[in-house]
Amino acid sequence: MIQKHDLKNIALIAFDADDTLWDNEPKYRSAEKSFVKILSRYISEDIIPNELLKIEIKNLPICGYGTKSFCMSMMETAMKITDFKITTEELYQIYNLAKNLLKHPVLVYDGVAETLEAISKKYPLALITKGDTLEQERKLFSSELMDKFNFIEIVHEKDEKTYSKLIAKFKIKPEQFLMIGNSPKSDILPILKIGGHAIYIPSDVLWSHETIDETQLSSFEKYDKVNKFTDLLKIF
Amino acid sequence: MIQKHDLKNIALIAFDADDTLWDNEPKYRSAEKSFVKILSRYISEDIIPNELLKIEIKNLPICGYGTKSFCMSMMETAMKITDFKITTEELYQIYNLAKNLLKHPVLVYDGVAETLEAISKKYPLALITKGDTLEQERKLFSSELMDKFNFIEIVHEKDEKTYSKLIAKFKIKPEQFLMIGNSPKSDILPILKIGGHAIYIPSDVLWSHETIDETQLSSFEKYDKVNKFTDLLKIF
Repeated sequence: MIQKHDLKNIALIAFDADDTLWDNEPKYRSAEKSFVKILSRYISEDIIPNELLKIEIKNLPICGYGTKSFCMSMMETAMKITDFKITTEELYQIYNLAKNLLKHPVLVYDGVAETLEAISKKYPLALITKGDTLEQERKLFSSELMDKFNFIEIVHEKDEKTYSKLIAKFKIKPEQFLMIGNSPKSDILPILKIGGHAIYIPSDVLWSHETIDETQLSSFEKYDKVNKFTDLLKIF
Repeated sequence: MIQKHDLKNIALIAFDADDTLWDNEPKYRSAEKSFVKILSRYISEDIIPNELLKIEIKNLPICGYGTKSFCMSMMETAMKITDFKITTEELYQIYNLAKNLLKHPVLVYDGVAETLEAISKKYPLALITKGDTLEQERKLFSSELMDKFNFIEIVHEKDEKTYSKLIAKFKIKPEQFLMIGNSPKSDILPILKIGGHAIYIPSDVLWSHETIDETQLSSFEKYDKVNKFTDLLKIF
């Protein structure tokens, strides 16, 4: 658990964006449900999500994260698992499921703006998110939270290597860095492994590719967990 | 034309990447030719490129630049202009045209590495490119030119606003900034308009969305044009 005296040495607090500051994953899962429904006349519904996930993971190294990749993976999955029997009209429905995700307004969670405002009076804040530049900038702009952050970083992977580079760029040491987010795999574990602090705020829905065995987190000293974003005010 | 005494005040030289440092647009045009061929049994070849361009431009504000957007726009165009008559197999061919572009190796132009090396001994260098983070990082990594640059910026649009922000971030004045690239619309005109220096190196192929009336450029004092990348050595 993070102690009061640890907080004195923190030089930068960074936040994840999707499903930490605002609602994101539930929209993807809702699009996936519609996708499954369209394909259900060709193939058993049960196996579709896993087939999609397999293609998403296969495409990650060349397509990356984000909605355009999700669009490509849904189209590819639909064509392959129906053995090219899916109709063009149905493919167009699937295409539009993804395209509509790119236009969705961002719903910032309750109390996020006020909590960030309060913490920003004590620490410089950064936002570290992964995905496509345009898409993440659009969401950030729409969230009206942009002015809360001193640094905004859009990266293509949130792993130990990326965080180490960013920490060097910020000219601080890992132990002066604190990351807050909803993904144990992307926001918490890599930070703890390089010697930084991390606070985990579980979200209702987590993409299965982001899940890890969470019990390993509590063995780290510089780790904490809160139930909701506004609980951060009890720590800082 | 840029004068010798102007160069003394330059604090940062920035380069565009695609079609300035390495070959890019010809691969897209080649994919487009294959796309036209696939659709030619439904519709007159002559009108296809323009229909694709219209959909690309319509999708730009939500999809941005890059190959994943190109993929989505090709799929959408193919479905719409064939009135959904295109087959799933043909759509899969089109999907793969785009997906293969994401895997292409980068071909750095002759003399680029040596020219950058020579200029980097006199000035700090930046790379400013637009598109998807992962895709541009992959190309930069594959080019082996990464270590030539002090700053790397992947933005979603190269306009006056973006450049002004970057110049402020670099803590310099527009007149201390020099941009070099192959797109009059994205690399040259916005820089000249905000009072910076720009050197235009025409490429063999330019995406029609990037073209402007080039005669307006020569009215600017801080503007220059060279025929090929290695000609920069005559200036610096």
